[in-house]
Amino acid sequence: MAVENMFWIGLVGAAIALIFAFTRARMIMTYSEGTDLMKEIAAAVRAGANAYLRRQYRGVAKFFVVMIIILAVLAFLGLVSPFVPFAFTTGGIYSGLAGFIGMKIATSSNARTAHAAHESLNRGLRVAFSSGAVMGFTVVGLGMLDVSIWFHILKYAFHADAATIGSTMVMFGMGASSMALFARVGGGIFTKAADVGADLVGKVEAGIPEDDPRNPAVIADNVGDNVGDVAGMGADLYESYVGSILASFALGVSAGYGWNGLFLPMAMAVVGIIASLIGTFFIRTGETTDQKNLLGALRKGTYIAAGLSAIAAFPLTYFIMDGNMGIFAAIVSGLVAGVLIGYFTEYFTSDTYKPTQELAETSKTGPATVIIGGISLGMKSTAIPIIVIGAAILVSYYAAGGGANASHGLYGIGIAAVGMLSTLGITLATDAYGPVADNAGGIAEMSGLGEEVRNRTDALDSLGNTTAATGKGFAIGSAALTALALLVSYVDIVRTKDAALLNISLTNPPVLIGLFIGAMTVFLFAALTMSAVGRAAQTIVVEVRRQFREIVGLMEGKAKPDYETCVDLCTRGAQKEMVAPSLLAIIVPVVTGVILGVNGVIGLLAGATVTGFVMAVFMANAGGAWDNAKKYIEGGHLGGKGSDCHKAAVVGDTVGDPFKDTSGPSLNILIKLISTVSIVFSMLVISFHIF
Amino acid sequence: MAVENMFWIGLVGAAIALIFAFTRARMIMTYSEGTDLMKEIAAAVRAGANAYLRRQYRGVAKFFVVMIIILAVLAFLGLVSPFVPFAFTTGGIYSGLAGFIGMKIATSSNARTAHAAHESLNRGLRVAFSSGAVMGFTVVGLGMLDVSIWFHILKYAFHADAATIGSTMVMFGMGASSMALFARVGGGIFTKAADVGADLVGKVEAGIPEDDPRNPAVIADNVGDNVGDVAGMGADLYESYVGSILASFALGVSAGYGWNGLFLPMAMAVVGIIASLIGTFFIRTGETTDQKNLLGALRKGTYIAAGLSAIAAFPLTYFIMDGNMGIFAAIVSGLVAGVLIGYFTEYFTSDTYKPTQELAETSKTGPATVIIGGISLGMKSTAIPIIVIGAAILVSYYAAGGGANASHGLYGIGIAAVGMLSTLGITLATDAYGPVADNAGGIAEMSGLGEEVRNRTDALDSLGNTTAATGKGFAIGSAALTALALLVSYVDIVRTKDAALLNISLTNPPVLIGLFIGAMTVFLFAALTMSAVGRAAQTIVVEVRRQFREIVGLMEGKAKPDYETCVDLCTRGAQKEMVAPSLLAIIVPVVTGVILGVNGVIGLLAGATVTGFVMAVFMANAGGAWDNAKKYIEGGHLGGKGSDCHKAAVVGDTVGDPFKDTSGPSLNILIKLISTVSIVFSMLVISFHIF
Repeated sequence: MAVENMFWIGLVGAAIALIFAFTRARMIMTYSEGTDLMKEIAAAVRAGANAYLRRQYRGVAKFFVVMIIILAVLAFLGLVSPFVPFAFTTGGIYSGLAGFIGMKIATSSNARTAHAAHESLNRGLRVAFSSGAVMGFTVVGLGMLDVSIWFHILKYAFHADAATIGSTMVMFGMGASSMALFARVGGGIFTKAADVGADLVGKVEAGIPEDDPRNPAVIADNVGDNVGDVAGMGADLYESYVGSILASFALGVSAGYGWNGLFLPMAMAVVGIIASLIGTFFIRTGETTDQKNLLGALRKGTYIAAGLSAIAAFPLTYFIMDGNMGIFAAIVSGLVAGVLIGYFTEYFTSDTYKPTQELAETSKTGPATVIIGGISLGMKSTAIPIIVIGAAILVSYYAAGGGANASHGLYGIGIAAVGMLSTLGITLATDAYGPVADNAGGIAEMSGLGEEVRNRTDALDSLGNTTAATGKGFAIGSAALTALALLVSYVDIVRTKDAALLNISLTNPPVLIGLFIGAMTVFLFAALTMSAVGRAAQTIVVEVRRQFREIVGLMEGKAKPDYETCVDLCTRGAQKEMVAPSLLAIIVPVVTGVILGVNGVIGLLAGATVTGFVMAVFMANAGGAWDNAKKYIEGGHLGGKGSDCHKAAVVGDTVGDPFKDTSGPSLNILIKLISTVSIVFSMLVISFHIF
Repeated sequence: MAVENMFWIGLVGAAIALIFAFTRARMIMTYSEGTDLMKEIAAAVRAGANAYLRRQYRGVAKFFVVMIIILAVLAFLGLVSPFVPFAFTTGGIYSGLAGFIGMKIATSSNARTAHAAHESLNRGLRVAFSSGAVMGFTVVGLGMLDVSIWFHILKYAFHADAATIGSTMVMFGMGASSMALFARVGGGIFTKAADVGADLVGKVEAGIPEDDPRNPAVIADNVGDNVGDVAGMGADLYESYVGSILASFALGVSAGYGWNGLFLPMAMAVVGIIASLIGTFFIRTGETTDQKNLLGALRKGTYIAAGLSAIAAFPLTYFIMDGNMGIFAAIVSGLVAGVLIGYFTEYFTSDTYKPTQELAETSKTGPATVIIGGISLGMKSTAIPIIVIGAAILVSYYAAGGGANASHGLYGIGIAAVGMLSTLGITLATDAYGPVADNAGGIAEMSGLGEEVRNRTDALDSLGNTTAATGKGFAIGSAALTALALLVSYVDIVRTKDAALLNISLTNPPVLIGLFIGAMTVFLFAALTMSAVGRAAQTIVVEVRRQFREIVGLMEGKAKPDYETCVDLCTRGAQKEMVAPSLLAIIVPVVTGVILGVNGVIGLLAGATVTGFVMAVFMANAGGAWDNAKKYIEGGHLGGKGSDCHKAAVVGDTVGDPFKDTSGPSLNILIKLISTVSIVFSMLVISFHIF
């Protein structure tokens, strides 16, 4: 059969992923949620998360309506393809749906994990991991579905050829990007406002333990884990996943590979789904709560999936690309880079390694040295990921034939991104597992389960922190590669439309100025998201203090706090504060384009991608290291909990919270959204610009 | 007379500057150093500074010998011009000499300023400012001398034509760059190690006031102000000054302007010297210690100099460039950008404006929010300088004719840098004034001068903090423009030698990877310098604690502390710790070049300049704002000294110390040194590279 007629495998892949996610979800629901108290707490978290998402989607819907009108006008003026407004809508809906399902299942699994951990560690792990798997496979399933449906509509309903499909579909990423930005920024602000608010008043001022049910912000804190780390992370990676495939479509066409150039990324994605699915069956553990053992269990699944993907990629590339095995090397370079970046993230942020232990030592001379130490550690930690990404670019470009033909090489970069993301199903599963385990621990604490159960949920939670670090590294790395692929696609679009405009030499002032603006946008965006957390947290602090003061009998456990108000305040705060940074990401590329033209935009994309990547790694790793340095001290080092060292480390951790959970991860989206916005508005900028 | 034969004006300009500096120095020496105690303290600071510089230069000499050998080998192999090893040496010597003279006069003026302030505020201001003027005019005088002498040697002894002089002399900047790096990094580590060490043990642990003579690190702290802020800042701006002129030489030649292209930057520099000289006469004040009044006095001088420069540039450009007044616009855009960046730096870091006042408010919720607030403020503050620099690039490029002929536009960028730096004489004077006033305050405190004198020196010191902020902004802005001019010169060199190698399109992988490495180098360099301060400060902390413990009668004022050991430890620490970051700056461009070729180097230069600029602004402004937020609280707001707010603000200030005085300013040099190293090693990279 000609490759041209085999794109149905995308639909098959999507179906496999979604059916698997469904069976996992069914399996989870057969577990019990435990005691009445546990059910009640879980219901409160669920209600809070639902309330947040409802409001979030209502707010985002307004934005989408405005954007759809703008895009429709552009389409009417012939400045974008008429499909774009529709694809923008489906991208947003699918991405939103992935977030919704992921959160739904995560909030249904937390109490079940706690209850299952009551029976055995392995059962607890399986429930929590299954919940992560639902998220992971829903994301890849819906992503593939969106891509496949549009492909088939264009090909069979509109009889588009490969070139048209490639150049049209690359514009389809903006809907998912926009949705992802709101999810990441809004969720990131929510979760950290709740966390900081709960800690500052509950732990520090009132002196009650973490996750204590008397703390009015405790439910909001648990809701935050779900809306930030589950929905936000899911939307982020959904976007990278779809973005890398669409960019490869466009690059494959301009490399002259025709249908085969489109088929390879789709086939790789399907192979990755199957490999990930197989990998999940290898994740199980015995009864020892030893971290190495648990981590080994998760790693085994991920590595098996990556290995299977790489093995399958060999015949696949051989047949699809007519024996051009350089492209196989590009796929493998992406897979390897993903694993390496994850590993080194862990090295710099886990307290089993030297960097974080040394950071903990700096607490001896007070909070200032902890801050300097953490910033310095985070900045140092950028070196290796940069070298890894640099090597992946070099290998994928030259192996794919970039030395002789640049467009072949650029296709290699796109395909490397697809390779890195092919096993997203399982990578995201190990990552989305974390918040569920964290919530389970909270529920175990609040509902007074025994010490043995707490020990198990603690072990699962601690594992979640490690996988969160690895997952963050992976998310950043894949975002950078995807953004590069999109940048190259943008250049391609301009070349097709009006090659004479293109002067992307580094000495062309618009390019240089674009670079500066790109770097600045990253700094400004990070600043805005960080101060947003501060402001939102402030309202929670005031509210929690008010409740402690006004609700009689609260501290004695005789009265219940008003959880809903805290959830509501976080929601409002997040909705309000996410507007400015989001608008920045959308306005900057358009304004830059109108003033500096396409070359300015290309400079902007390069500057934002480069600085954004370095900054995201810095913020994620500094934040992770501060968090774990604090935990290291709490584990009995340097005087343990309550010591002066611990107090200094808490300052570091509080600074690290918005670093690692708000600003850092949001930068992933920023660099991709700037790219997709630029692509959608490319014809406008080509038609109208000042310089 | 033909322009070709008028380059002697450079020698005249140098002579004017140096003679003026000499007369100022003579004038200062006529003042008395005051009481015996004051003389004694001043002598101790002087001895410490001398000891530091001696050791610094001895260490640097070793590096210079190694580099000269390497350059001689390269010259022997025909990979650099045979003049380079000699020019490298003179550049290093002149830059070192400028630092030496500046420090010599600064350490001779501190007690004299204190004593003069005893008589009147105006006298105090005049002595301190004159000391700054000696530094400012020595830097521009020696810079002009170095450039002029080499120009005359090449032109008259070797009969070189304009093209040869332009392309040869652009390689001459590396000596000054290397010296500047050691001065900035070493001085920055010294000053902050002493400061942090003195504060942590003296102020926080022992509870004695700042500048208390019982503190063993107090002399080291005063020495630090001189070696960091005077010698370091001087070497930094010496390098920008010379670098911008040399880059404009090269760009003028490749723009086809011949001798005229070389003459304009030199003439502009001479005009700037005279304008600066006139400006200094307008700096005087009455007896009110009001900051606005004092700042007005300094500003008047600077603005008059800038205005005169701009006015004189008009006929100059008209005659030299045959009525091409676009180049005049380029000069003015540089001058205006310098003033604007300085102004906005002040806006973000002075406690008379909202940003710093709001930062002070965040201290209510503890140190963590102070840190988040300061980081966020610093990041936000990058936007305006970027827009200003972007606008300056755009205006200077297109006004100078870049739309029709790129090389004309690039000359415009070079000339804008020269314009910005033309009034360096007076700008640097207002900046180098600060440490002298700071030292004068310390001496007034230690020698027990009356309250009225303290009030005056406090007013002078506080003014110094403002001018330091403005000066830092100016140093960063001029470094960025100079680095851009050098980047463009590099591209030019490669184009002349082997144009076929050049593919600086942003989608060429070596360029992209170079960008990533550039950004990473900035982060890594900042991390290394920051942790260097931490380690060096640690040794001071240990030593001060030891002296407090072991020297009997120290706290009662009956015994004297051992100041020398602290100075010595700071010196050793600085010497040891400056090696790693310095090597990074030299090795990265060479290794990148050998692996990725010239396109990788060009990407590296762009990435480092862009990220380095943004990062330098961020660090300088965050640090400055933290410092002033603390001072704002000490001024009686939010509970004043000793309150919880103050304690939180002190944490911010301590974090800010290495930000604003070590890592931030060192980044200026990093981006210029990477450029000059790349230029010197360009032929090596052209002849040998892997990709």
